Amino acid sequence: MSAIGALLRPRSVAVIGASADAGKMTGRPVGYLQKYGFSGAIWPVNPRVEMIAGLPCYRDVASLPGAPDAAIVLLGPDRAEAAVRDLAAKGCQAAIVLASGYGEANEDGARRQEALKEAAGAMRLLGPNTIGLVNLTDGIMLSATGALEVADLPAGRISVVSQSGGILGSLLSRAADRGIGFAKLVSTGNEADLDSSDLIAELVEDEATDVIAVYMEGLRRPEAFKRAARRAAELGKPIVVYKVGRSESGARAATSHTGALAGADRVYDALFRQFGVIRAETFNDLLDIPAALVAGRRMHGNRVAILTSTGGAGTLLADNCGLAGIEVPAPDAVTTDRLATLLNEDPSAIGRNPVDVTLAGLRTDLFRGSIAALLDSPGYDAVVVVIGSSALATPDIVAGAIEECQALSDKPVLAYVSPHAPHIVRLLNGKSIPAFATPESCASVLRALRRAVLPEVAAPVEFDPAVLAGLPSGNLNEAESKALFARFGVPVTREHVAGDANAAEAAARQLGGEVVLKILSRDIAHKSDLGGVKVGLSAEQVPQACATMLERLKASGAPAPEGFLVQERIRGGVEMILGFHRDPQLGPVILLGSGGVAAELFQDTTLRLLPIARTDAEAMVGELKAARLLRGYRGAPAADVPALVDAIMSFAAMAGAAGERLLEAEINPLFVLPDGHGVRAADGLAVLR
Amino acid sequence: MSAIGALLRPRSVAVIGASADAGKMTGRPVGYLQKYGFSGAIWPVNPRVEMIAGLPCYRDVASLPGAPDAAIVLLGPDRAEAAVRDLAAKGCQAAIVLASGYGEANEDGARRQEALKEAAGAMRLLGPNTIGLVNLTDGIMLSATGALEVADLPAGRISVVSQSGGILGSLLSRAADRGIGFAKLVSTGNEADLDSSDLIAELVEDEATDVIAVYMEGLRRPEAFKRAARRAAELGKPIVVYKVGRSESGARAATSHTGALAGADRVYDALFRQFGVIRAETFNDLLDIPAALVAGRRMHGNRVAILTSTGGAGTLLADNCGLAGIEVPAPDAVTTDRLATLLNEDPSAIGRNPVDVTLAGLRTDLFRGSIAALLDSPGYDAVVVVIGSSALATPDIVAGAIEECQALSDKPVLAYVSPHAPHIVRLLNGKSIPAFATPESCASVLRALRRAVLPEVAAPVEFDPAVLAGLPSGNLNEAESKALFARFGVPVTREHVAGDANAAEAAARQLGGEVVLKILSRDIAHKSDLGGVKVGLSAEQVPQACATMLERLKASGAPAPEGFLVQERIRGGVEMILGFHRDPQLGPVILLGSGGVAAELFQDTTLRLLPIARTDAEAMVGELKAARLLRGYRGAPAADVPALVDAIMSFAAMAGAAGERLLEAEINPLFVLPDGHGVRAADGLAVLR
Repeated sequence: MSAIGALLRPRSVAVIGASADAGKMTGRPVGYLQKYGFSGAIWPVNPRVEMIAGLPCYRDVASLPGAPDAAIVLLGPDRAEAAVRDLAAKGCQAAIVLASGYGEANEDGARRQEALKEAAGAMRLLGPNTIGLVNLTDGIMLSATGALEVADLPAGRISVVSQSGGILGSLLSRAADRGIGFAKLVSTGNEADLDSSDLIAELVEDEATDVIAVYMEGLRRPEAFKRAARRAAELGKPIVVYKVGRSESGARAATSHTGALAGADRVYDALFRQFGVIRAETFNDLLDIPAALVAGRRMHGNRVAILTSTGGAGTLLADNCGLAGIEVPAPDAVTTDRLATLLNEDPSAIGRNPVDVTLAGLRTDLFRGSIAALLDSPGYDAVVVVIGSSALATPDIVAGAIEECQALSDKPVLAYVSPHAPHIVRLLNGKSIPAFATPESCASVLRALRRAVLPEVAAPVEFDPAVLAGLPSGNLNEAESKALFARFGVPVTREHVAGDANAAEAAARQLGGEVVLKILSRDIAHKSDLGGVKVGLSAEQVPQACATMLERLKASGAPAPEGFLVQERIRGGVEMILGFHRDPQLGPVILLGSGGVAAELFQDTTLRLLPIARTDAEAMVGELKAARLLRGYRGAPAADVPALVDAIMSFAAMAGAAGERLLEAEINPLFVLPDGHGVRAADGLAVLR
Repeated sequence: MSAIGALLRPRSVAVIGASADAGKMTGRPVGYLQKYGFSGAIWPVNPRVEMIAGLPCYRDVASLPGAPDAAIVLLGPDRAEAAVRDLAAKGCQAAIVLASGYGEANEDGARRQEALKEAAGAMRLLGPNTIGLVNLTDGIMLSATGALEVADLPAGRISVVSQSGGILGSLLSRAADRGIGFAKLVSTGNEADLDSSDLIAELVEDEATDVIAVYMEGLRRPEAFKRAARRAAELGKPIVVYKVGRSESGARAATSHTGALAGADRVYDALFRQFGVIRAETFNDLLDIPAALVAGRRMHGNRVAILTSTGGAGTLLADNCGLAGIEVPAPDAVTTDRLATLLNEDPSAIGRNPVDVTLAGLRTDLFRGSIAALLDSPGYDAVVVVIGSSALATPDIVAGAIEECQALSDKPVLAYVSPHAPHIVRLLNGKSIPAFATPESCASVLRALRRAVLPEVAAPVEFDPAVLAGLPSGNLNEAESKALFARFGVPVTREHVAGDANAAEAAARQLGGEVVLKILSRDIAHKSDLGGVKVGLSAEQVPQACATMLERLKASGAPAPEGFLVQERIRGGVEMILGFHRDPQLGPVILLGSGGVAAELFQDTTLRLLPIARTDAEAMVGELKAARLLRGYRGAPAADVPALVDAIMSFAAMAGAAGERLLEAEINPLFVLPDGHGVRAADGLAVLR
C-alpha cells in the first residue's frame, strides 16, 4: 500500500494531542473515528490522560505499540513539528497536520512550514492548515471538522479534493441536504508535501470513486495534474473543477489564502479543455455536475425533451437550456402522435417542447407513458421532468414513475424541482435520478452530460539544441524571426534583407510588383509607429522611401537599424495572430486570435498548452468568433483553414523544439488566403532568453 | 377604490363553484380565506350545498346579498363564462378565473377567452389560467394553490407579479424557506384583461410594497409598463424583472405558454436599462435581489469588504465579486491599524481583503469590532460577512453581533452562509441582514445595491407629417436617405447626384481631390457587390468608371439606376453603424454599433428605445467595446465623441418625427473623425412604408 493509500485507508491511526473532552475540537477526531465505525486501531496520544473514550492513551509517540499507518496531529504550530519528527522516526506512513499559522500567515509561518516538511523526512504529510480527510466508503474520519456532526452523511461514489477546508465542509453539508453521497473528501490545505494532484491521482484509481470534484486555487505541479487527468479520462472517471482566480480580486485572495501560485486563469481553461476536465462555472455546479455524472448516463447528442405539469417552470428551463446551447426541439411526428393518443389531445396542441401534461401529471399512468414516449424518441438524448407543486404531497408516486421509466432506456433522466422541496430532491437523488433546484443547474448539467471524447494525446516535441544555436539573446529581428518559423514549415512572405537603399531597390525588382518596405531592427518593437513600414511601393519608389525612413528614425533618436526588409505585398485573405508565451505556472502556451484590433478589443483569442495535437489546432480555429470570416463571410471566398492548421502545428513544433530559451514568439499578421492558396506570415517576432 | 384595488383588498369575496370538501382544489379558497384571517364577507356559491365551512352557501350569483368587491371563479371553462356574466351583472368589481384551456391551449380556447372577456363587460378580469392572488399584508388569499399550505408565510414588503402561476408558487415556497416575506403576489396568467403592467402600476402605489419582483414572458402594453417603471423610480421602489426568452427555445416556449408576444430580448434589455428596471440574470436573483433591496440600504460606491473566518469561502466570494465588477480593495492604513490592534496581529498579515479573522470569529467582541472597523472605513461601501461552519452551533451570537454593528452605519451589511444552514439564512433575513447561500447571489446583489440614479426623462419627439411628405414607399436611394438624415442635423459627406458620366465628372471637379463614385439606385441593396462603388477616383477617372459600372450593372440584370452619386472621400476616423428599426412588440429602436464586420461578428452593438435622452446616447457610446477605439487606441487620436452623440440625437429626432411610415434606417459607415472634426455619414438607407 502506498503512503497515500495508507492515509486514505489506514489500519491504525494515532491521534496526537487528543483530548478526553469530546466537546473540544481536539476531542472530536477520536469520537468521529468511533462514531463512523473505524475498525482499525485508534491510538490517542496525550501525556496528561490515561484513557480517552474507552481507549488507552499513550504518553508520547515513542510509546505507541507500533508504527501507525496514519496519524492526525492536533497540536498547535509550536509543538506540531516535534510530533511530526517523532512520527517519522516511529515509521508512520503519513501524517495530517491541522494547525494553521504556517505559509498562509506570514514569513515566520513559511519558515515553520519548511521546518515541518523537513521534520517529516520520508513520511508523507497532509497539510498543514487542513481539516483533514473523510473516507465515507470505509467510515474513516481523520478530521476535527464540525461538518461531521451532520446526522446523516450518505456514502456515494463522488470524491472531493479541496485546497480549502471550509469549502470541503460546505460541500459536505450541502450534499447531505440533497442526498448526494461521497466516497472520500480530502482537504490539502497548504500542500507542504501532498498536493491536489497527488490526491487526484490516488482517487482516480480508487475503486469506490466514479467522479472527482475539485476545489482549486492553483496547481503546484501541472504535469502531475495532467497525468492524473489523462488517466481519469482513460478510466472514464470525469474530473470536475471549480477554480477560483477568474478575477483579479479572486486571484489575489487565493494567493494570500493558500499561497497558490499565479497562472493566468485562461490558461487553466485551456489546460482543462485539453485534458477533458469539466470546469464548474458556479459553486453549485461543483456539486450538481458530479451528482449528475455519477448516475453514469451520458447524452449522445444535444437534444433534450422537457416534460412539465407547470408551464412557467418548463419555459424557464427551456430558456436556460437554449442559453447553454442545448437544443429543445419539438417532438417528431411519431412521438407527437403517441403522446396525443395517450393524453387524448389534439396533436397540434401536444407537438411542442416543453411537453405540457398538466392533466396527466395527476394521473400516474399518463405521466409514465409520456416519459416513456419521450425516452423512446430517437429525437431526444435526455429527458428532464419538471416537478411542480402538485407533487409536493405525493412525491413517491412521481419519483416511482420516473424510476420505472428510467429503467427502460440508457438516456439520462433528470428532474427540475420547481418549488422549494428538499425532501423531493433527496428522494430523487437517492433513486439515482439527479434532481436540481435551479434551471441554471439543469442546463449546466446537461452540457456536462455530453459523452466525453477522450482527447487526442499530443506527441511531445523534443528539444533540439540546434534550433536556436548561434542566435542572440533578446529580440530577433523580423527576418531572423520569420526564418526561424519558416524552418519548421510556416509559410512566410517572400523577402530579402537589404543593407542599403540600392540593395533594397534591387531586391524589390527581383520580387516584382508592389512591395512592402520595412526597417529591420532588433531594437524597435513598433516599427510602424516610427514610419518604419511602407506598403505598396514600386521598385523605383524604394530608394526614396528608404531615405525617408532613415531620416525619421534618426530624428526619433532610435538606434541605427540592421538594414531594410523588402517583401512581397500580400493582398486579400483574413488576418490572424499566432502567438507563443510561457505562463509562469502552467508553462508554454500557443495563442490563436483574430487579426487587427479584434484580438484585443473583442478578446477573440483562444489558447492551448504545448504540446498540441492536430485536433487541438482545428478546435482552436473553430472557437474564434472570426471562424465565420474564415468560412467565407458575406460572399467572400472561404479561407484556407487546413493551411492555417498546418501553420499552427508548425509554429507549435518550432516552440517545442526551441526549448526554454524561447520566451515569446508572435506572427502578426498571419494572412490566411483563399482556399488552396495557403497562409503567409507577414510579420513576426521571437524573443530569446 | 379602483377595481384593481378592490381585487387586492376586497371587503367581500364571492367564491363561485366552492366545494364543501376542503380536500378538493375547489374547497381550498374558502379555507385559505378563513385560515389567513380574512375579515370581510365570504360568499360561497354552489347550488348543491347549504353551508361551507360554517358559512351559508348561495345557489347562484344572483342570490348573493350584494355586489361582491371581488370574486374567484373555480368553474371549468365550460361554465366560467356564464358565472362571469352573472358577476358583471351583479356589479362585482373584479373577478379571477382560474381555469385553463383558453388562449394557451388552442384556437378553440382563444375563442373561449374572447367570449370570457366579452362576458366581463366593465368588470375587470384576472386570468384565466391563473392561480390568483395572495395578499399577505392583509391576509387575503384569492387562490387555490397548494403553495398556501406552507405553514409559515411571513408578511414582508416585496410584491410579486408573475405571468406564471407555477413560478409564483415556486417563489412563495422558496422565500418561506429563507425567511423572506411578501406583501402581495399576483399571477396574471393569460392576461385576457388585467396584465402585468396593470398590476405593477397598482403595486407601485401600494403602501405596504417597497420592491416589486416580476416574472415576465412578454409585455402586452410596453407604454403602460414604462409609465409604471417611471413612477416606481420616482418613488424609489425598485422593480426587479426575470424575463424569459433570452434564447430561441425560451421565446418559443413562452409564446406557447401564455401567448406572450414576440419582441427581441435585447430590446427588453434596453427598455429595462432606460427605465431603471433591474434585470435578474438567474432565477435565484429574482428572489435574492429583492431580498437585499428591501432592507433599504444602498451602496454609494463599488467597493466591498469581506470579513471571513474561513479562507476558502472568502476567496470564493472575492472571486465572484471581481467577476461581477465589484471591487475588493485592501483596507486603508487607518483601518488596517485598527484591525491589527484589535486582533493583536501584525498589520502586514491583516491588511488584506478578504479580512480573515479565523480567531476573532470565536470571540464575539473581536468579531464585532472588526465589522465596525470595516463599516467605519471610508474605503468601503458595503460589508459582506462570511458565516462558516463554526457559526452552525451558535448562530444567535453571530447574528446578534452583525445586527448590532449594522445599526452603527447606513451601509449595506450582507451575509454569505457557506455551509448548508437554512436556519441561519432565515434568522439573518428575519433581522434585516440579507443572507445568501451562493457566492454568485452575493455578487449579483451587490451590483444591484448601487444606488439607482433616476434615469433622465427623454423628451418625446412629435410626429411631423411634413418629414416624409412626397417621398415614395419602399427603399429611398442613398442621396434621398442622407438628405433626410441631414435635415435633422446628421453631418453627411459632401456629394452631388449626377444623371450621367459627364455630370459625374463635373461633380467630381467641383468637389476636388479624390472622390467616391457610386451607383444611385433604390433597387440595389448591396451596390458594392455589383461593382457599384469606386473609392479614390480622380475627376478624370470618373467617366470611364461610370461606363464600367453601367456595363456591369446591365450584365447582372439589375434595373437601370437613377444615376450616380459623387462624393468626397473620407479618410481616417473610426467607422460606426447607426441604425433604426421597429421591434414588433416594443416599438422604435435605435442601434449603435462598431463598423465593418465587428457589429455582426463580435456583436458589438447597443440598443435604446425611442425617445432617447442625451445621457442615453452618451451611455450607448460607452457600452460598446469599440469605445476604446473612440478614446484613441494604440496611439491613434481620440475621436469626436460629442459629435457622435449629436449625430445619435439627430438621427433619433429624425426617426421620431418621421413617424410610423419609417420602417428602417441605417447609416453605415458613420465616420467618427478625430476630436473637433465631427462625424460624416458616408452611406445610408431609409425604408418607408
